[in-house]
Amino acid sequence: MFLRDCWYVVAWSHEVPSQGLLARTVLGEALVLFRTQDGSVAALADRCCHRLAPLSRGRHEGDCVRCGYHGLAFDAHGRCVEVPGMETVPPGLAVRTYPVVEHNRWVFVWMGEPERANRRWLPDNFSCDHPDWVYRPGYLHYEVPWQLIADNLLDFSHLSYVHEATLGGSTAIARARPRIDPIERGLRIGREVKSVPAPPYYAALRAFDGPIDRWFIYDFLLPATLLMNSGGRLHGAPEGDSASEVHLHSCQALTPETESSTHYFFQQAHPRHLGDEKVTEGLYQGVIRAFEEDRAMISAQYGAIRRGGEQAMMSLPMDAALLQFRRLVEREAAREAGLT
Amino acid sequence: MFLRDCWYVVAWSHEVPSQGLLARTVLGEALVLFRTQDGSVAALADRCCHRLAPLSRGRHEGDCVRCGYHGLAFDAHGRCVEVPGMETVPPGLAVRTYPVVEHNRWVFVWMGEPERANRRWLPDNFSCDHPDWVYRPGYLHYEVPWQLIADNLLDFSHLSYVHEATLGGSTAIARARPRIDPIERGLRIGREVKSVPAPPYYAALRAFDGPIDRWFIYDFLLPATLLMNSGGRLHGAPEGDSASEVHLHSCQALTPETESSTHYFFQQAHPRHLGDEKVTEGLYQGVIRAFEEDRAMISAQYGAIRRGGEQAMMSLPMDAALLQFRRLVEREAAREAGLT
Amino acid sequence: MFLRDCWYVVAWSHEVPSQGLLARTVLGEALVLFRTQDGSVAALADRCCHRLAPLSRGRHEGDCVRCGYHGLAFDAHGRCVEVPGMETVPPGLAVRTYPVVEHNRWVFVWMGEPERANRRWLPDNFSCDHPDWVYRPGYLHYEVPWQLIADNLLDFSHLSYVHEATLGGSTAIARARPRIDPIERGLRIGREVKSVPAPPYYAALRAFDGPIDRWFIYDFLLPATLLMNSGGRLHGAPEGDSASEVHLHSCQALTPETESSTHYFFQQAHPRHLGDEKVTEGLYQGVIRAFEEDRAMISAQYGAIRRGGEQAMMSLPMDAALLQFRRLVEREAAREAGLT
Repeated sequence: MFLRDCWYVVAWSHEVPSQGLLARTVLGEALVLFRTQDGSVAALADRCCHRLAPLSRGRHEGDCVRCGYHGLAFDAHGRCVEVPGMETVPPGLAVRTYPVVEHNRWVFVWMGEPERANRRWLPDNFSCDHPDWVYRPGYLHYEVPWQLIADNLLDFSHLSYVHEATLGGSTAIARARPRIDPIERGLRIGREVKSVPAPPYYAALRAFDGPIDRWFIYDFLLPATLLMNSGGRLHGAPEGDSASEVHLHSCQALTPETESSTHYFFQQAHPRHLGDEKVTEGLYQGVIRAFEEDRAMISAQYGAIRRGGEQAMMSLPMDAALLQFRRLVEREAAREAGLT
Repeated sequence: MFLRDCWYVVAWSHEVPSQGLLARTVLGEALVLFRTQDGSVAALADRCCHRLAPLSRGRHEGDCVRCGYHGLAFDAHGRCVEVPGMETVPPGLAVRTYPVVEHNRWVFVWMGEPERANRRWLPDNFSCDHPDWVYRPGYLHYEVPWQLIADNLLDFSHLSYVHEATLGGSTAIARARPRIDPIERGLRIGREVKSVPAPPYYAALRAFDGPIDRWFIYDFLLPATLLMNSGGRLHGAPEGDSASEVHLHSCQALTPETESSTHYFFQQAHPRHLGDEKVTEGLYQGVIRAFEEDRAMISAQYGAIRRGGEQAMMSLPMDAALLQFRRLVEREAAREAGLT
Repeated sequence: MFLRDCWYVVAWSHEVPSQGLLARTVLGEALVLFRTQDGSVAALADRCCHRLAPLSRGRHEGDCVRCGYHGLAFDAHGRCVEVPGMETVPPGLAVRTYPVVEHNRWVFVWMGEPERANRRWLPDNFSCDHPDWVYRPGYLHYEVPWQLIADNLLDFSHLSYVHEATLGGSTAIARARPRIDPIERGLRIGREVKSVPAPPYYAALRAFDGPIDRWFIYDFLLPATLLMNSGGRLHGAPEGDSASEVHLHSCQALTPETESSTHYFFQQAHPRHLGDEKVTEGLYQGVIRAFEEDRAMISAQYGAIRRGGEQAMMSLPMDAALLQFRRLVEREAAREAGLT
């Protein structure tokens, strides 16, 4: 099931070049993206209305895309502006377009009715666009429905097991119970653990000479975006002592490609003062390794679900946040369907 | 949808050896081909009637094929002539056979009722079998239904876009409108363009020191065979001046393998006087490169159709021939079904 | 169709290590196997009851397996014994277990109701567990339903054709008619051929300086286990003259993985006095080569059946044993279903 009245990350800004076309599928719909001459991004259905060839196999020409099969040209509004061999273009020749916003280095498309598009609902992924922060862009492709990945992000108890050798490092994370608070279009989730070893991926950032206290505070917003402050400081050190802290900001955004595959856009940012390019790279390597651990586990889980028939999942206290978020999605879907 | 009362190219003659078996699927039916001792080709269903093993995994023995699983032997008429361990063969032990004709270096099978097989309907692919012409045989496999490839061959406006760098070279081809005339079991299509650059693939044949006039005149016949005269001469030169012309003959035949895959047999011939083996090879390389361009585009189109649900194609003037041919196929299918 | 009230070989004993987990699918059900500290093998459903992740991606800890996603631990009886972050385990948290027996180097699971598990039905694969015999374990994976492989094993006439260059060597095997006798839960099948060339794979064992007499005597038991004595001696030599004989024992066991794939466990044993490791290896190489011949043919047969629609197989006298065994399976299935 997909929500439609949402901004979905469709690409990193740098993926849409000033010359050329980008094909990407969102909610099962094939899109072609390109920049007009003023630099703004257009998103069109990636099927020529003539014989249904993908426009992304054609050519970017100024403010238009030209189909590579029979040469029809379409502008950024999806209107056909040329049919080779015809003096005038027949009325109604057009392909669908999607509202697009570029924000914090991400290109978002609105998949619902265009008139309902609401810019207030764009996530605040500030650390990709702030002079005091440094990030590296990331992307993974999942052959898994988006919900299972959202489940994963909504319950960090898995850090103790899936990420024992990377992000985790202690079973204390699984034993801790998070605070869960409703916020607009989402949940705020906070988890703290005291006096645990520094996790392996902190090694790129700072050496601690003793156990640390760690915190994870994140908003998880519709459709499926995680915005997180996290960090650690020497056990017992006073809050806010940036000289002895690790302090990170990250964003992870799930965009369903199809019912059973998902785009996973992510970035992990650190304050600029915390280190140079080597630190950025070390942090990225730690994160990508961990996200591959997730992908392996969630893909295996999805495989077991597909093969295994109708067995229901069993809910435990650790599932509180993911159950609340699943209900939020269902309410929103009912609202979109006009049922509420 | 398949027409059955047709000759379909199943193989180039040289693909059926004097010793050995050839397996090929036509209209979803697996066939095994072999030559009897008099050199004629037999086509049998490629499934032993005993336990359904493919006969093509067995052995060619004289005028028979022997199943490689339990040793049953079948003659060119499909009759079982030996069951190991039995003195006499039980009556009725047989596999289906198909009428076969070898003509102009191609092996054709008749997929309808054998008594309706009509040799008059064999296409005249003369340039594969004529001392004044030189050809090179070609084959491509498509993971695409045959109709989309027929559509492509029935509208040459795509030459300007798909084949810009190979067979085309000018948007004049897309702007020109062809003559379309009904003929027996097909259409005759003629397109001329005046004063255009010589297309890149002509370079193997002749250098022109100015723009040329080009022509494409082809019959497109049931089930899906293109027989074409094409060529070019210096713009304004008189017709028939063979010293200054490029004049080609080609044949392209589509044979459905399954509902969603197609055998594409083709040849491009030139008059012997136009050049030696190097010319033949250069011409073939130009053509195969172009046909790969078609395959990439049509495969992408088919992908978009499969993924994209029920969107209808939109017909434009350039689609006149393909729409007429689709109607011809439908009429013929209705006739086969006894509806007319 | 699967029988459930059977012991199925799930692994060679050496495949289940003292530390670690083995994942294997039987009758479409994913299992995880491990050894408890006393060395016995436990078989659990390979899906955590919490969020359905495969337990085989977790960790073996003493007598338990711990899920690698959120850390639940299960003992050899499938009971959940720990949920991270909970003081007590909620009642009823468990995964399914399967009865297991280790016998003659093979690990068997019982796929029916546990209380019906009957150790008397374990096959007597003695030559894997006897000081006078030497064997080498083998395994092949088939993308084919188990019934087609059972058919193959129940009609050795295919040795003359499929195994002409390995196990066969003479059409006399196909011409011979076997004795077929019903036994408890199966059939006993005997076939003898006189004065034939020694088959190529005997070369590893003994050189014969003339034609030999060969015998194949095997029990084929539910669910699909072949236990065979086979051998050959110089034509006309007296029975039991071990100095001039080749005498072999083998076992082949089919375990359905899914409706369309099969585990094929096998071993070919020879008397210890017949040769050293080189002989064992040579014999194994002869057998594996032949079993690959079977797999190629049966896979091709299955391909032809899948693609070819509803054509029925035609029964010949050589099919007597396989038809009897298919009826036995149907009777047993009806009994399991409570229909008889």
